[in-house]
Amino acid sequence: MLNFAFHNPVKLIFGKGQIAALGREVPEGARVLLAFGGGSIYKNGVHAQVVAALKGRTLVEFGGIEPNPKFETLMDAVDLGRREEVDFVLAVGGGSVLDGSKFVALAIPYEGDPWAIVARRGRPRTALPLGCVLTLPATGSEMNPFAVISRSSTGEKLAFSSEQAYPRFSVLDPETTFSLPPRQIANGVVDAFVHTIEQYLTYPADAPLQDRFAEGILRTLLEEGPKTLAEPRDYAPRANVMWCATLALNGLIGCGVPQDWATHALGHELTALRGLDHAQTLAVVLPHLLREQRASKAAKLLQFADRVWDLRIGTEADRIEDAIRLTGEFFDRMGNPPRLSAYGLGPELAQEVADRLALRGVLPLGERGDVDAEKVVQILTAAQ
Amino acid sequence: MLNFAFHNPVKLIFGKGQIAALGREVPEGARVLLAFGGGSIYKNGVHAQVVAALKGRTLVEFGGIEPNPKFETLMDAVDLGRREEVDFVLAVGGGSVLDGSKFVALAIPYEGDPWAIVARRGRPRTALPLGCVLTLPATGSEMNPFAVISRSSTGEKLAFSSEQAYPRFSVLDPETTFSLPPRQIANGVVDAFVHTIEQYLTYPADAPLQDRFAEGILRTLLEEGPKTLAEPRDYAPRANVMWCATLALNGLIGCGVPQDWATHALGHELTALRGLDHAQTLAVVLPHLLREQRASKAAKLLQFADRVWDLRIGTEADRIEDAIRLTGEFFDRMGNPPRLSAYGLGPELAQEVADRLALRGVLPLGERGDVDAEKVVQILTAAQ
Repeated sequence: MLNFAFHNPVKLIFGKGQIAALGREVPEGARVLLAFGGGSIYKNGVHAQVVAALKGRTLVEFGGIEPNPKFETLMDAVDLGRREEVDFVLAVGGGSVLDGSKFVALAIPYEGDPWAIVARRGRPRTALPLGCVLTLPATGSEMNPFAVISRSSTGEKLAFSSEQAYPRFSVLDPETTFSLPPRQIANGVVDAFVHTIEQYLTYPADAPLQDRFAEGILRTLLEEGPKTLAEPRDYAPRANVMWCATLALNGLIGCGVPQDWATHALGHELTALRGLDHAQTLAVVLPHLLREQRASKAAKLLQFADRVWDLRIGTEADRIEDAIRLTGEFFDRMGNPPRLSAYGLGPELAQEVADRLALRGVLPLGERGDVDAEKVVQILTAAQ
Repeated sequence: MLNFAFHNPVKLIFGKGQIAALGREVPEGARVLLAFGGGSIYKNGVHAQVVAALKGRTLVEFGGIEPNPKFETLMDAVDLGRREEVDFVLAVGGGSVLDGSKFVALAIPYEGDPWAIVARRGRPRTALPLGCVLTLPATGSEMNPFAVISRSSTGEKLAFSSEQAYPRFSVLDPETTFSLPPRQIANGVVDAFVHTIEQYLTYPADAPLQDRFAEGILRTLLEEGPKTLAEPRDYAPRANVMWCATLALNGLIGCGVPQDWATHALGHELTALRGLDHAQTLAVVLPHLLREQRASKAAKLLQFADRVWDLRIGTEADRIEDAIRLTGEFFDRMGNPPRLSAYGLGPELAQEVADRLALRGVLPLGERGDVDAEKVVQILTAAQ
C-alpha cells in the first residue's frame, strides 16, 4: 500500500425528507446565493422544500448553470453574489451545479483574476461556506474538493481541486431524483462506474481492501443501475446508486493505490471539442483504453474479470477481452454506446485530441505514465 | 436503506515514516500532554520519533494508561494536564490509550464531575485538541468519537461518544506495529472482525454497497490476519489489517443499516467481571449469539456464509452452522478460543451478566431488541 492522507470534512445527510435539515445547517440570518441549473427544481418540488427549510434567510437566486458549467456563466453568479453581499452559497442540482458553485464560492472573495483558480495558477486561501442539495447522483462533487469548469472563449475544460472547495454539508435525498430524465440517471451510473475504474484498474499494490471496496461499488452499480432505469420511482435502487456515486469519488477508494485518470483526460477533450455528455466520452474511451493497455493492466483486468464479471473460465486473454466487452455492453445498455461513430464522430478527432493534450503538457498520462500522444491516437482511432 | 448522517472530520495520515508529520499537525509552541501506555514506545523507537517531530513544543508525559483504561488512572492525567496548563493532547498507543486520551481531552476543560462524561449524564461542549499516533490496530478509536472507560470502584465498563472526541488527526504507521506481541495483533484482528459483524450481520436493509464493504473488510481480515501473525515484519499485511480496523469502526459501514452490538454489551461485562481481554470476550460471545439468533438473522447469515466463507452447498441450516463454526475456528486460530471454559470460567457467569445488564436498563439488546435477560443467559450458558 502506498502512503496516503485522507481527510474528508463533508457532513453527508442522506435520506427521505432530509432537505428539511437545511434549517439546521445554514446559519440563521444568512444571505444565501441559491445556485441551480435549468429550473427543474421548480417543477419537482425541490425549490419549494429548500425555501421552506430556509425561512428567515435572505435568498438570492441564480439559475441557468449549464451542464459542463461555463466560466462565463459562473462569473455572472460571482458578480451577483458580490453585489448582493451573500455570505453563503447553496448549490441545488447535479454535479455541474455543484462544481460551478464551488468555483463561485471560491471566486467571490478572491482578489485577482478568478480564472487563475481554475487554471491552477492561483491558490485561493478562503471561500464562502458552501452547502449542497444533490439532485443527480454522478460526479461525487457533493463529497469532494474537485470541480471541472469549461471556458467558451478558449474551448478549454479544466479540472481543479482546492481544500477550500469541500462543501460544509451535502443533502442527498434519493426522492429528488425520481423525476430525472432516464438519460441523466444512466449517465450518472456510467460516470460513477468509470470513476471507480480509474482508481482500481491499474496494477496490484498490496491493497486488497481498496480493491474490494472498488469491486463492491462496481457490482452494485451493475445490479442497481438497470433496476433504477426500469423503475425510476423505486427508492432503494435510487438510494444505492446515489451512495455508490458519492463513494466512487470521495477519496476513500483511492487511498494508498495508484490511479489512472487517462480516460477522463481524453474524455474532457471530446466534450470540449464536440459537446458530448461527460458519460458518453467515458463510455467511448474506457473500453478502448483498457484494450490498448491490456498488457500493463493484465493482473487487475483478470481480477476485474473474476470478481466483477464472474469470468473464471477460458484463457487469460479471453477473460480480459470478455470483461472489456461486457463493460462496453453495460455502457451501451445505460444509453452510452462505447464508440465515436454512435455520436456521429470519426477518426479525425484522434490526432486533434492528442495535439491538445500535448500542447497543455499533460502527456504522458496513466498510472505508469505511458499513455503518450501515439497511444492517445491509437485509442481514439480504435474507438470508432 | 435507512436515513443517515455521516460526518467524520478526522485527518488520517497513513504510512511508513509518517510520525514525522506531527511536526506539521501539532501547533508550534503547544504545551502537549503526551499520553501513553506501558512504555513500549520507549523500546520500539516510537517515543524518539515523536519527540524528534515535536521539537519546539513543551511535552508533559503521562504514562501508564492500562488496557481497559481506568477512570482513576485517567483522572491523574487530567490533574497533571490542568496543573501543567497543557493545550493539546497527543495519544501514542493502542485503542486504550486513545480512548483514555479522549476522556482526558474532554475532562481537562470540563466543569463538574468528569464521570458524568462517561456515564452520559453530562454533555461536554468543548475539549482540548487531540492528536493520535496509533501503534496497535484494533478498535478504530483513531477515526471515531467513541471511548470505553472502566471504573475500578464500581466495576463498571462504559462506552460513550461525543462529537468533541474526534481526534483532529491520527498518524498510522504500520511499522510501529512490528514489535507488538502476537497476542495483541491477533486480538486486534478479532476486534475489527466483530466490529464489522455488529454492523453487518443483522437483517437485509436494501443496502448492497454497505454489505459489500463489510464483506470486503471481513475477507481481508481472514486473509491478512494469519499472514501478519506468521510474518510480523511484513509491511503489507500489517498495513492492510490496520486499514481494515480503521474502516471497521469509523462510521462508514454502519451508514443506513441496522446495527446489533449485543456481543459488545455482553463482552464488556465479562471484562468488567473477570478481566478478559476485549477480543477474548467477543470471541466467546459472538458465535453463540449468532447460533441463538440464527432464525432472525437467517438471511444475512446465509449471505455471510456465501460471500465471506464461500459456502454454497448443503442445506440452509448447514451453511449457517458451518459459517458460525468457521468464524469460531478463525477466532481460535487468532488465539482467542470461542468458549468461556478456555479462560477458566463457568456457567455461573451467565445469570450475573444478565442481572448486571438488566440493572443498568440496557436490555433488551440487538438489532430487533429481542435479546432479553433470558437470551443473555442462554447465550452465555451455551458459551462453555
